[in-house]
This record gives sequence, structure tokens and C-alpha cells, in this order.
Amino acid sequence: MAILSDVATEVLIPIAAIIGIGFSIAQWVLVARVKLAPSQPGASRSKDGYGDSLIEEEEGLNDHNVVAKCAEIQNAIAEGATSFLFTEYQYVGVFMSIFAVVIFLFLGSVEGFSTKTHPCTYSKDKECKPALFNALFSTVSFLLGAITSVVSGFLGMKIATYANARTTLEARKGVGKAFITAFRSGAVMGFLLASNGLLVLYIAINLFKMYYGDDWEGLFESITGYGLGGSSMALFGRVGGGIYTKAADVGADLVGKVERNIPEDDPRNPAVIADNVGDNVGDIAGMGSDLFGSYAESSCAALVVASISSFGINHDFTGMCYPLLVSSMGIIVCLITTLFATDFFEIKAVKEIEPSLKKQLIISTALMTIGIALVSWLALPYKFTIFNFGEQKEVTNWGLFLCVSIGLWAGLIIGYVTEYYTSNAYSPVQDVADACRTGAATNVIFGLALGYKSVIIPIFAIALGIYVSFTIAAMYGIAVAALGMLSTIATGLSIDAYGPISDNAGGIAEMAGMSHRIRERTDALDAAGNTTAAIGKGFAIGSAALVSLALFGAFVSRAGVKVVDVLSPKVIIGLIVGAMLPYWFSAMTMKSVGSAALKMVEEVRRQFNTIPGLMEGTGKPDYANCVKISTDASIKQMIPPGALVMLTPLIVGTLFGVQTLSGVLAGALVSGVQQVAISASNTGGAWDNAKKYIEAGASEHARSLGPKGSDCHKAAVIGDTIGDPLKDTSGPSLNILIKLMAVESLVFAPFFATHGGILFKLF
Amino acid sequence: MAILSDVATEVLIPIAAIIGIGFSIAQWVLVARVKLAPSQPGASRSKDGYGDSLIEEEEGLNDHNVVAKCAEIQNAIAEGATSFLFTEYQYVGVFMSIFAVVIFLFLGSVEGFSTKTHPCTYSKDKECKPALFNALFSTVSFLLGAITSVVSGFLGMKIATYANARTTLEARKGVGKAFITAFRSGAVMGFLLASNGLLVLYIAINLFKMYYGDDWEGLFESITGYGLGGSSMALFGRVGGGIYTKAADVGADLVGKVERNIPEDDPRNPAVIADNVGDNVGDIAGMGSDLFGSYAESSCAALVVASISSFGINHDFTGMCYPLLVSSMGIIVCLITTLFATDFFEIKAVKEIEPSLKKQLIISTALMTIGIALVSWLALPYKFTIFNFGEQKEVTNWGLFLCVSIGLWAGLIIGYVTEYYTSNAYSPVQDVADACRTGAATNVIFGLALGYKSVIIPIFAIALGIYVSFTIAAMYGIAVAALGMLSTIATGLSIDAYGPISDNAGGIAEMAGMSHRIRERTDALDAAGNTTAAIGKGFAIGSAALVSLALFGAFVSRAGVKVVDVLSPKVIIGLIVGAMLPYWFSAMTMKSVGSAALKMVEEVRRQFNTIPGLMEGTGKPDYANCVKISTDASIKQMIPPGALVMLTPLIVGTLFGVQTLSGVLAGALVSGVQQVAISASNTGGAWDNAKKYIEAGASEHARSLGPKGSDCHKAAVIGDTIGDPLKDTSGPSLNILIKLMAVESLVFAPFFATHGGILFKLF
Repeated sequence: MAILSDVATEVLIPIAAIIGIGFSIAQWVLVARVKLAPSQPGASRSKDGYGDSLIEEEEGLNDHNVVAKCAEIQNAIAEGATSFLFTEYQYVGVFMSIFAVVIFLFLGSVEGFSTKTHPCTYSKDKECKPALFNALFSTVSFLLGAITSVVSGFLGMKIATYANARTTLEARKGVGKAFITAFRSGAVMGFLLASNGLLVLYIAINLFKMYYGDDWEGLFESITGYGLGGSSMALFGRVGGGIYTKAADVGADLVGKVERNIPEDDPRNPAVIADNVGDNVGDIAGMGSDLFGSYAESSCAALVVASISSFGINHDFTGMCYPLLVSSMGIIVCLITTLFATDFFEIKAVKEIEPSLKKQLIISTALMTIGIALVSWLALPYKFTIFNFGEQKEVTNWGLFLCVSIGLWAGLIIGYVTEYYTSNAYSPVQDVADACRTGAATNVIFGLALGYKSVIIPIFAIALGIYVSFTIAAMYGIAVAALGMLSTIATGLSIDAYGPISDNAGGIAEMAGMSHRIRERTDALDAAGNTTAAIGKGFAIGSAALVSLALFGAFVSRAGVKVVDVLSPKVIIGLIVGAMLPYWFSAMTMKSVGSAALKMVEEVRRQFNTIPGLMEGTGKPDYANCVKISTDASIKQMIPPGALVMLTPLIVGTLFGVQTLSGVLAGALVSGVQQVAISASNTGGAWDNAKKYIEAGASEHARSLGPKGSDCHKAAVIGDTIGDPLKDTSGPSLNILIKLMAVESLVFAPFFATHGGILFKLF
Repeated sequence: MAILSDVATEVLIPIAAIIGIGFSIAQWVLVARVKLAPSQPGASRSKDGYGDSLIEEEEGLNDHNVVAKCAEIQNAIAEGATSFLFTEYQYVGVFMSIFAVVIFLFLGSVEGFSTKTHPCTYSKDKECKPALFNALFSTVSFLLGAITSVVSGFLGMKIATYANARTTLEARKGVGKAFITAFRSGAVMGFLLASNGLLVLYIAINLFKMYYGDDWEGLFESITGYGLGGSSMALFGRVGGGIYTKAADVGADLVGKVERNIPEDDPRNPAVIADNVGDNVGDIAGMGSDLFGSYAESSCAALVVASISSFGINHDFTGMCYPLLVSSMGIIVCLITTLFATDFFEIKAVKEIEPSLKKQLIISTALMTIGIALVSWLALPYKFTIFNFGEQKEVTNWGLFLCVSIGLWAGLIIGYVTEYYTSNAYSPVQDVADACRTGAATNVIFGLALGYKSVIIPIFAIALGIYVSFTIAAMYGIAVAALGMLSTIATGLSIDAYGPISDNAGGIAEMAGMSHRIRERTDALDAAGNTTAAIGKGFAIGSAALVSLALFGAFVSRAGVKVVDVLSPKVIIGLIVGAMLPYWFSAMTMKSVGSAALKMVEEVRRQFNTIPGLMEGTGKPDYANCVKISTDASIKQMIPPGALVMLTPLIVGTLFGVQTLSGVLAGALVSGVQQVAISASNTGGAWDNAKKYIEAGASEHARSLGPKGSDCHKAAVIGDTIGDPLKDTSGPSLNILIKLMAVESLVFAPFFATHGGILFKLF
């Protein structure tokens, strides 16, 4: 047995979660000390310790008006974001309710809504609860996951729209102050989300156990609904938010930057508020839901495989909770890591920002490796068995440590490769920038080629991770490897959220008409954030591949499938159609962004043409109309891609059965991960940074391509615009597509196993 | 037993092939009657029956100079193409020789170069020839395939460069005359290639039989080298030719059309000859090799599966030759079909061209269905067994008829879907054109989305085809379905070759300074050719998917693999890495085109800037230098992607073994076919036609986007340029990638089965 007692496990997990939430609140309090009201010179500033002199004062500008204006703009952004999210949640709420009923009816029908217990599948000597109750509890955990996901996204958005203007104001004092404000705000979101996800899951398990008692098979089967709920909300959040933000962004850029030659975030541009709202609903709320979904899914995948292994069969609670203990350890490790950025060191110059953020990732990964070793040593017996498609496989605790660690480090490698291909500090992006010399076409050709190429090493890293962890501990190994990648999620999320907050801060500075030096500082923050966000995306991609494979493994285990043979026609057609789904999905989302952007462009052009004095800054643009266009377009257009993803497993499983569905999942996985990892994210990221490279003009080479407004720069802007929907709508949503179809199949596995494949049964 | 006797089969196949060759020569004679020398008014024209009045005479222009100039330009194009192909063949020749040695050594080592016979694998009572001799004959058939492929491509190029100026001259007389000249030239190539491929294969089988005697397993195993040889030549031809043509095209367009505002094919553009050479080496020679490869591979896949089924075991020669008989019937059917275009009806107006070409496809498909029924009835016994991964499966002749027919008709469906998404007669391309209103970026976004979407129906058609033919006759069903798609190859190739010939004819008219009305006629021919070429591409894509699946099936059969389980780590890593390969490959080819185009752009700019009077038409551009740049770039850059494809199966098979290799093949297939079918070909085709739609201005909507030189049109040109490498380099080469890796694995299967998987054996 493990060194850690069951009681200690019961106590440690919630304590870690509560520490995380406490830390999050502490960070929030620190951010809140930046007042969004004109400060009394001297007195109040010395009180809150932020006593630096302000740029405005140096430049002799009026302080009061600017602060008030920042507050006003922040309010407008927050209102836009809140109203969009509420509209979105209304529509999604209807969908969720219907889907909850579907889950209950499908799963309830497995044993014809009988209320009799039956012998368990994997431990024959135990009695398992009736399928009807599994259906009920699955529905409950589905709703729980959905609600937690909504709350995560919503709180993230609230914090971001609370912090953006504060970051702008702090930027008046210095780049270090602004960095800390933005980073702390990111940390509020990161820790809240990680801790919340863990706590709700933990409480749900404990409450469900009161009914299930000895029946751990049923218990953890029902718990997978939590992953499905989180993930399906994430899908709509990502797709809806992604369409919103990119329609506004593309629309604003096409008319503003390209046609009217006014800078980004210029208050004269009618789409500028919508663009800033978009960052918050897409990059913050969408991403928050997404990563929560990943976390919930990988935990559920690990738990459901563990429940039919020796942990579950022998009722070893501590061993069973190993995935949750790893996550708990992750919260503590990330907490220590955060202090390195906010307290142990101080940022004084712009060039220190990026190294400081990168250090976060390395520190958290290094510390977490020790943390995993500790957890593996304390919480696992030296030897145990893991379910491996019909047989039990023996695994040691050090083997499992290796699985988690390889996931963690593979994530870091993927992250760094992503950075290499998307940062303008290295030659790939510089080559793309150089291709702008001959126009937009060569820029696009080089950008696409770069994206394709950037997949090579990540795929090898994932393949190696899969091979090692699969060989050591079958599908459980893969599930914990995914968990390993996500174990430093709090730090990853902090960095991810920090980016859009800085971006918004810059937008507010521009709109409030503040000194250009402030914009330069926030731009520096944003640029560093972009690079590290790329690393974060690497983690997300790698973990999505591993999570969906783990879920796939859990699905085939649950559905009683022992072999998925590519040489069977049922599987091969599934494989080829599954590989097609990411394309179908991308076609929908790309086109949605395109059409919504077209509408936005027309509206922005209309306003420029009809509102007198708009270009001269005397007329006031109608921001609200642009917000409405983005909102309407994204709500309407998120339905078809969402339905495609949610309905495919149901239709395939019901009509064609588990073999074809296995093929579909495998096909979507292998094709989607390439598209996610490549075309989409990295191509878009590279174009974005190639443009920034030319704009910044930091090197001889970059200056030869610039300045802003040159033909080269125009070509770069075209690339950047094309990349927008790729990297912020299609790419991240594909990530969810592959995971969501797998977790949905897992939840419905008992139904498909009993009633699925109607079409083949008929003919 | 079958109705057709073995002797009749022995006679009918070569007769069909010889008829095809004869028909091809007859068409050539008809084309050759158009003289490339100034004609004596009256006398000669009435003699050759082409007695119409010439546009020049109507317009009172001098006839003599124009004809001489056409001949001169044709010579320059032919010389450039010949010199490129010779350079290419030198390099590829070295590679082929080395690879031939590799084949011999690898396959010879299977039984340690022993010269002893051994009992056959599938008919235990027979003695099979030693592996050493299989190695020898495989090497011979590999070289035979390679040489036939080279000859096919080279002859095609020769005919095309013989016919292009003749088409220009005929266009002076009328659009109908020009159409017939171009189409007959296409037919020369189509029939020569189809007949030649069949005849060489047939002769090889008969010669090999003299050694092999009773050992049909060994005989047809060795014959698969023919497919490998054809396909590997096709790879280099496609990649080299594709880089050549698109570097020249992109380079010429970027400076000529975009920067200098001179029309396409303007003789002042230094890259114009290179561009026209490119059409011949890429679209004609490359495509000729490619389709020959497909044909050879699908025949070999069918033969090798048949050889271990009842046909092979019972030595039923007629049944065994069923695939060849289907191809023979195809030649006859296509011959009749061609007469519909050239003799039964006459084209009088431009608008009749496209329907006439489309009719070709429908007529050939309809007639071929009857032809297949006839062959199935005559050549097959009513019941026979087919090898199905370790067991024999019973099949009827009508079942097999269904397999071939479903392939044939699925090809037509895919073709029409391709046309729908790439022709500017329908809304998808019109939407893309419309997106040009807001610039190049939205054009690209809509184009990519269109490409993604266009894959949905083809994939369902392929999946249905796979399911039905697999269920009826296992992998043999899929092989004959692929053969069914390719059975009308002669017609498909005629139409495909007709396009670049018309394109070249237009270029020659422009360069020779002929009346604009001639250019309009050739443009009309070219536009119709583009649409039907899209249908041809559909066939190529669909058949590639089926052929590679059939080869994959033959490979696993030969390697003794019974199950390819996605749930095994060896397979899943293969699957994910295999799905990555098309991206890696595309990254290389896209970047190659980009870099080569950059060099071309610089050279063209240099010439415009340094050669005095070039823009005014008084200075003479240095065409040869541009030809040299394209040649050097393509030769140098075709090596890495070629090596990637050729080495991957060898490395994976040797180090990781047949299970991982199976995964790689399946992964490359499912991912590559999407990319081929979509991103690449259709996106590129749609951009091309969106541009043409705006240029032609045939509708109210199109005119609102134009004219040439408007912002909309410029945005469309950018899309077209991006699409060039996608649709003419990456796309078609990916097609070969998936087939070639499969056929190579099949050839090396005995080696991998005995000595493969070194790495897993070590650890």
C-alpha cells in the first residue's frame, strides 16, 4: 500500500485547492489596490507604495481626465463582454439542457430504465448500481462541468476587464509596475481556474460516493460527465468567442489599418471597442473554458481507467486519487513559481520581460518534476496493475512517475519548438518577413510552409511520449502523461491571460489618447506575452493529443472493444471520415469569420463615409453597432460547427457502432492534431510576429523591410489578417474538437456498446 | 471456369494495346497535317481540307512572319523542355540506379542470397522460386517501370510542344479547328500512355512467366516493382516539374502582372518562355508520369492480391488477367468516346467546348459500365475466392462488377464535386471572387474555407466506395475499384493534356504578336480545359486513395500481418507520424517554390531594370537565364522531398517493423488524401477561376468586381499566386506520396517481414 493514508489524501486535496483559491484572492487584492480614480498627488500614492512619478506629470499632461477616460473605456469593454457572454450563455444554456436530457435518456435506456443492480463488469464479485442511476449522475456531473466551465470563463473575463485599465495606469509609472499588475491579474485567473476545477471535481466524487459506495466503476463512469460538460461549454466558448474576436479584429484592421491608414486601436475606428471586447471573450473566457475542459477531461480519463485497474478493484483510494494529487501538487508548485515573477525578482527594463516569463515555465517544470516524484513515491504502492484492453498490466510507481514526467517535459519541448517557429527572434519568422519583399503572395506561401514544417518535432515528441507511456502503463500512462503536461496549468494560464490583458491595456492607452510612451510599454508587454502564449499553445496542443488518446482508450475499454483493426472496412471508413472532420469544422469557422468580417467591414466603411468628422476626430463613431454585429454573427455561426462536433459521435455511434466510431476518433485525432499544431496556430502566429518584426524595426534587416505603411508592411498585414482566424478561431477550436468527440464517446460508450450500430444490424 | 479461354485472353490484351497505339499514331498524323510553314494560298489549304479563311487575311495582316515566329517560339519552348527533362533524367537516373541496387540487396537478403527453392506461402503444395531471383526480377521490373514512365512523360512533352503552335495557327481559322487540333494532340498522349503501360506490363508478365512457370506468387510479387518504378519516377517528375513550372509562373506574374502591369505571356517578360516550358514539363510530362504510375500501381495491387487468391492458386490465367482485361476494354471504350469529340460532332462556338468535354467523361463512364459488365461476365468464373487477411472469401463475378463500377462512378462524382467547387459558373468560386472586395486577406480566408469544405462529399464517396468494395471482395475489391476509376484514363489524359496545350497556344499567340481575337479563342479553349481538368484531378485524387489502400492491403497480406490495431503503441505512433508526413512534404515543396520564385522575381526585376528598352519592346530579354534559374532550382530542390518519400518506408520498416509501417501508411493515407483533395487542389483551382471570373467579366456581378487592374482584381491575383504551388506542386505530389510509400512497402514487404523492426528487437 501507499505511504499516504486515505485520510491524508482526503484532506490534502481540498487544502491544496483552497490554498490556490486563497492565493488567487490575494493577487486580486493586490491588483485592486491600483485605483481607477484620479489619485491625490503624494498622499495616496505613498500609502499604496506605488510612489513612482508618472509619465504624464513628466510631460505636464492632465492626469485626471485620462484616468476617468480609462475607466470609461474599461466600462464599455466590460459591458460589451458581459452582454455578449450572457447572450452566449442563454443560447448555450438551451443546448445544454437539451443535451442533458439526451444523456439521461440514452444512458438510461442501456438497461431499459431498469432499477435493478447487476454484477460489475471488471470486478465480478461486486454488485454495481443500475444504469438508470449512472445516467442520472452522469447528467448531474455533465451540468456541474458545464457550470464550472461557464463560471471559469466568466470570472476570467471579469478579472481581465478589471485589470486592463489598471495595467494602463500602472504603465505610466514604469514597465515593471505594469508587468506585475498584468501578471498578477493573469495569476488570479490561473489559480482560480485550476483550484476551482480540482475542488468541484473532488467534491463531486465525494458526494457521488455517498450513493455509489462500493461501486467505483459506476462512480467514475458517471464522473466523466464532468469532462463532457466542461468541454462542450469550452467548444461553444472558443468558437463563439473566436468568431467574435476575429470578426472584429479583421474588420477593424481591414478598414482602419489598410484602407484608412490609422493606427491599431485608434478611437476613430468604430470597431475598436468590439475588437477589445473580443480579446476578453475569445482569448480570456474562451481559453479559460478550454483549459478547464482539458484539465477536467484528462482527470476523468485517468480516473475512469484507474477505476477498472487494481486501484479501483482493490478500493485503494489514495492510488485512485493519484491524478488529483498530481494536480494538487501542481497548484503548490505554480504558487511558488509565481513568486519568482512577482516578488523574488523585479522587472526593470523591457528586455527582462520575456526571459522572466520563460523562466516561469522552466521553473515550474523543474519543480513539478520533483513534485511528481514526491507524489508518486507517497501516493502509489510500489507495484500495481493497470487495465490494458482486456488484461491487467503490472506497473511500478517509478514507471508512472516516468509517464507523468515525459508528458510534462514533452509539453515544454513542444512549447519551445512552437516559440522557435513563431517568435521573430529566430530565422523562420524572419524568412517569412523577408518574403514580404515580393508581396503578400510569397508571404502567405512561406507562412503556410512554415506552419507545415513546425509540426515535425512536436509530432515526434508526442509520438515518443505516447510510445513510452503506453508501453509502461497502457492508456493510463497516456492519461497521466496528459495530466503531467497540464499539471502546471496555473502558471500556463497566468501567462496566457497576461497577454490579452496587456493587449487591452495598450488599446485603452491609445483610445484614451495617452502618451505614446505608455503605448510602447504595453506593446512590449504584449509582444513578450505573444511569444510565451505560443509556448502555452504548445502545451495545449500536446495535451489535447494525449488527452484525446487517453479518452479514446477509456472509451474502447468501456465499450468492451479489444481491437480497432485498420484492416476492417468499418474502421477504415471511420478513419478516413474522421480525418475529414477537422477540415469540415475549419471550413465552417473560417467562413464564419470571413462573413462576419465582411459585415463588419461594410459597417465600418459606412460609418466612415456617413458620420461627418469621424476621420478628423470630431464625430463620434457608433461603437455599439459594431459590438452588435460581432455578437449576432458569432452567436448565429457558432451553432453549426458546435452541432457538427456534438452530433457526430452520437450519429456515428448509434448508426455505425463502436468500431466505426473508434475509427472516426482516431482519424480526427491524427488529422486534427496536425492541423491544430501547424497550419492553424503556428502559421498564424508567424504572420503576426513577422508583421510585428517589420513594425518594430529592431534590426538592420527589419528596418530594410519597413517602415509601417511600406509595401512590405502591407503584405505582412495581409498575412496577419489571414492568420487571425487560423490561429484564434479554427486552431484552438480544433483542439477541443478532438477531445470533445472522444469524451462524448466515452460518456455514451455503454449506450453504443448495447444499442449502437443500427445500420449495420439492419443490412 | 470463365467463358473466355486463356488463349483468347493472351491475344485480346495485346490487340487492344496495339489498337490504342495505332489510334494514337492516327491522331498524330492528323495533327501533323497542320503545317508549321507559311502555306501557299489556295493550293495547299484546299489539299489538307482546312480551307477556312484566316483571321489575318480578314484583318489584312502578313501571314508569313507570324507562322515563322510561331515556329521559332515553339522551338524555344521545346528546347527548354527537352533540356530540362534531360537534366532531370540524369539526376534521377543516378538515383534509380542506386535504388535498383538497394532493391536487389534488400530483397536478396531475405533468404540470405540462397538459391534454393522453398514451398509457397499460400499454396503449400507448390515450390516457389528463391528470394534471390525474386529480388532480381523485382529490380528488372522496377527499372522497366521507371523507363516506361520516363518514356511516357517525355513523349507527352514532345507531342505537346509539337501541337501548341499548330493549335495557335488553327485558331486563326476558327475555334472548332483549334479545339480539334488540341484535343487530338491530347488524345495522342492519352492513348499512347494507356496502351504503352498495358503492353509493357503484359509483355513483362509473359516474359517473367517463362522463368517462374508455376510460381505465380513470386511472379506477381516481382511484377510489383513495375509500379514502384513508375511511381518513383512520377514523384520526381511531379515535384521537379511542379517546382519548375510554378517558380516560373509565380515569378513571371509577380513582376509582370503585378508590378509592371503587362499582360500574361507578354514577350517583354523575361520569364515568359520559362513559364511556357513549365506547363510542358510540369502539367504534361509530370502528369503523364503520375497517371502512368497510378495505372501501374493499381494493376500491380490487383494482380498481387489475385495471385494469392483462387485465380493464382488454381492458375486461372483469364481470371488472373481480369485487371488487364478491364484496362484493355477501357482503351476501346475511350477510343469510341474520342470519336464523339472529334468526328461525330463538330464544335462551332466557344460555348460548345465545355459541354463537349464534359460529355466525354459521361459517355466514357456510361460505355465503360457496359464494358465492365461484359468483361466480368466473360473473364470471370461465376464464383471464386479472394484472399482476405489469412482467410479466403467467396466472391461472385457480379460482385466484382459492382466493385469496379462503384469505383468508376465514385470517380465521376468526385470529379463533378471538384468541378462545382472550382468552376466559376457556381456560387462557391463566385463567393471567393466577391470576397476580393475587401482585399486579398478575405479572398485567402474564403479560398481556404472553400478548399476545406470541398473535401466533404469526395470523402463520403470514397468511404462508401471502400466500404462496399471491401465488403464484397476485401482488398481485391478496392484494387479493382481503383482500376475502375482509372479505366477511362485515356480519355481523362486526353482532356488533361488538352488544357496545357491550349494554354501554350495562347502564350504563343501573344508572344508572336498575333491578333487579339486568336488569344480570345485559345483562352476560351483553356478555360474549358481548366474546368474539365478539375474533374480529371478528382479522378486522380479518388483513385490515389483507393490505389494506396489496395497497395496497403497487398502489403499487409505479403508481410503476413493479420491485424493493424490502433490500440497498439507501435501502430498509433506510426499513424500519427504518418499523418504528419504530408505536412512535412508540403512544407518542403511550398518553400521550394517560394524560394525559386523569389530568385526568379529578382532576375526578372534585374532584367527590367538593366536591359535598356525592354519595357518599350525594343530591347530583347534574356529568356535563357530564366529557364536556367527554374531548371537549377527545381533539380536541386526536388531531392529532399523525393528522399523523404523514398526513404521513409525503408527506415520505418527496417527500424520499427511492419506494424509501425502499417500505421505510417494508414496515417499518410487519411491525412494526405484530405490535403490533396482539399487545401491543395481545390483551393488553388478556386482562386485561379475566381481571378478568371473577374477578368472575363461575363456577368453583372463579375463586372462589378473588375476590370483587370482594379483593387479587387489585384486581390484575386494574390490568391491565384498563392494557389499555384498548392494546386500544381504540393497537391499533385501528395497524391504520389501516399501511393508511392504504399507500393514501396509492398515491394520491400518480404524484407521487412523477416529483418524489419531492428529497434524494437534491440530494446
